[in-house]
Amino acid sequence: MDPKLVETKAVEVIEAGRFLYDRGWVPATSGNFSARLDRDHAALTASGKHKGRLTRDDILVVDMNGKSLDPGKRPSAETLLHTTLYRFFPDTAAVLHTHSINATVLSKIAGNAEAVVLEDYEVLKALQGVSTHATREVIPLFPNTQDMNALARDLADRLERQPDMHGFLIQGHGLYTWGRTMEETRRHIEAFEFLFACELEMRRLSP
Amino acid sequence: MDPKLVETKAVEVIEAGRFLYDRGWVPATSGNFSARLDRDHAALTASGKHKGRLTRDDILVVDMNGKSLDPGKRPSAETLLHTTLYRFFPDTAAVLHTHSINATVLSKIAGNAEAVVLEDYEVLKALQGVSTHATREVIPLFPNTQDMNALARDLADRLERQPDMHGFLIQGHGLYTWGRTMEETRRHIEAFEFLFACELEMRRLSP
Amino acid sequence: MDPKLVETKAVEVIEAGRFLYDRGWVPATSGNFSARLDRDHAALTASGKHKGRLTRDDILVVDMNGKSLDPGKRPSAETLLHTTLYRFFPDTAAVLHTHSINATVLSKIAGNAEAVVLEDYEVLKALQGVSTHATREVIPLFPNTQDMNALARDLADRLERQPDMHGFLIQGHGLYTWGRTMEETRRHIEAFEFLFACELEMRRLSP
Amino acid sequence: MDPKLVETKAVEVIEAGRFLYDRGWVPATSGNFSARLDRDHAALTASGKHKGRLTRDDILVVDMNGKSLDPGKRPSAETLLHTTLYRFFPDTAAVLHTHSINATVLSKIAGNAEAVVLEDYEVLKALQGVSTHATREVIPLFPNTQDMNALARDLADRLERQPDMHGFLIQGHGLYTWGRTMEETRRHIEAFEFLFACELEMRRLSP
Repeated sequence: MDPKLVETKAVEVIEAGRFLYDRGWVPATSGNFSARLDRDHAALTASGKHKGRLTRDDILVVDMNGKSLDPGKRPSAETLLHTTLYRFFPDTAAVLHTHSINATVLSKIAGNAEAVVLEDYEVLKALQGVSTHATREVIPLFPNTQDMNALARDLADRLERQPDMHGFLIQGHGLYTWGRTMEETRRHIEAFEFLFACELEMRRLSP
Repeated sequence: MDPKLVETKAVEVIEAGRFLYDRGWVPATSGNFSARLDRDHAALTASGKHKGRLTRDDILVVDMNGKSLDPGKRPSAETLLHTTLYRFFPDTAAVLHTHSINATVLSKIAGNAEAVVLEDYEVLKALQGVSTHATREVIPLFPNTQDMNALARDLADRLERQPDMHGFLIQGHGLYTWGRTMEETRRHIEAFEFLFACELEMRRLSP
Repeated sequence: MDPKLVETKAVEVIEAGRFLYDRGWVPATSGNFSARLDRDHAALTASGKHKGRLTRDDILVVDMNGKSLDPGKRPSAETLLHTTLYRFFPDTAAVLHTHSINATVLSKIAGNAEAVVLEDYEVLKALQGVSTHATREVIPLFPNTQDMNALARDLADRLERQPDMHGFLIQGHGLYTWGRTMEETRRHIEAFEFLFACELEMRRLSP
Repeated sequence: MDPKLVETKAVEVIEAGRFLYDRGWVPATSGNFSARLDRDHAALTASGKHKGRLTRDDILVVDMNGKSLDPGKRPSAETLLHTTLYRFFPDTAAVLHTHSINATVLSKIAGNAEAVVLEDYEVLKALQGVSTHATREVIPLFPNTQDMNALARDLADRLERQPDMHGFLIQGHGLYTWGRTMEETRRHIEAFEFLFACELEMRRLSP
């Protein structure tokens, strides 16, 4: 692995962490982030770190089976969700997973629904490839589990059925989204968080 | 076009962008801003930029038909709304368009109403020409559309009928407001956002 | 008037403005602030200024009848409320008036009540002289008006009847509070804003 | 007492104060913080200080009976709660007490309940020793009182019955939490505040 490439991508991840922590979307060491290095590798956050104060040392390299290439470092428990996304989407360059209050609550009140659906918001156009508010954004919803192998398999199945998704939610847990650049991925996070906030407000006002 | 004037106005737009982004009112590259250059031209944000990190390069000059004078740059899709306002109000010096959570939700729950009406708030006095809380501020509400020609025509019609408006809302989309200086326009944004927040709170408490 | 004293007090007012604006409690040039200079004079904010960016020039000296001693500067429309407080409370050294979302909404939903009452909050102990949560803080509520002479008279009457108040609300308008130092007055603002936020939450949850 | 150790721990407390004040969790001089020095002593905040601007002078040393070793300084009224925790948990290195809006409201609406219970949130894993969202976090709830001796005795009793607690609430007052390092204690505060915010949102949406 080219150390300069790892360095560059580590900086992207560290900066994303600072941005997301400042917004309150990765409190108490929650969340995990990654950036693709090449077809077979990604730079990923180590487990249990403060996401607003990441250093180069908190980033490790994993292969697409989620195996750490940095023997001393333990990758995030949810590494397999990242690698499942990189394998499915060849042009995905970054994956961000956040735990915001709004994503947590919206995913919990959705109950047994298969997805949260957002419609008729101008900001939906911030999602890659969406060109009108008159769209129907289906955000898959998975029950929470500590069994990451099972969740990664469910995600792979769902990606086959719904390859046009821009993100997914895990119940009581948070959001995963991705993009063709780190910049696009951060835009997706901002868009989803804005939309979740609007949607909860709507439900509060017309329960 | 005097390049020093363009430069000065670009700085106004860039600073307004930083301010509005920091408040969370233009997330995920949403929003667009402009400042009048002379009777026939305005400096306007290019399409799709991060509004909190605008640079001189993200600003272009348009004429009052919305045509870009900077061939390499694509103006915001909503340029015609800006130019319609500049043509109607000769003393308008700046136009700001934001996408806040509160403006989005308030405009959506208003349903088929023609306007959102605000009354009996002291902060209404921050709107240019208003000198008492005992006023009735009528904020026109337009259905959202991607057809900017149609929306610009509707806006022009509405301006004829209600020339004393200080801003308008597009449903599920956001707020437009303007002023005789950029400073006044920023004051209008702050006032409207404050009032939208109050109004939603009021509706939450007495649905 | 000793220019060094005016300077010192102007700095107190400017810093309070920055603090209160950053919290979002004086949006869109709303609010006004003052600091006592001596028995008969106070330094006060001029009308219509941005409260987060006050400069020495935005502060003027008034006597206790609200008359400006700086001929070129127009004092805030609400000067008489400040001077009424300074005359009634000889040990009051600062008066701060804010327009927060919570104060605005809480004062509006209170309807025709004579006061908003807060009980059983530990933070009540932040109000000068209160030593237990088991207290009953009565915050007088005045209907809004643009007639400041009338409002100042009503305030004077109410002060006679309820001299132990720590602040009052004007409907759809905001909060006045004061203290024996600027520091104490800022503590009162923080305490009231915290309590208003709690109280609105309580009402939202058990309407 | 080794002055260098006191210095180091004072810095931890001062920085925690800045962090917590910036979040709005210790408004108006509320809250108090401590860090263990050795088996028999802790560094603790003095009474009534602004918690976002603590200086070395605002920190004093107490023994585990709550007696100040700095004669000129008055320890926080709630010192006995800190020392009760240090005596019960030999590995506790820091105690933080905050007064947030969410903790205040959640504790008040809980009425006569003995505890607030949180379940099925991924962020529960941020609490020391919790490894799954499928847990049941029981947060004891004490009625508010100004009698700290009585409250400290109640706390000691409850600790005997429920030694696995990570924090407790006092009604209308706030949260106490602790940890084996100041870093862990700050993580606990962030986790609890996140969970309280989620829980209130849930209750607002399905009352």
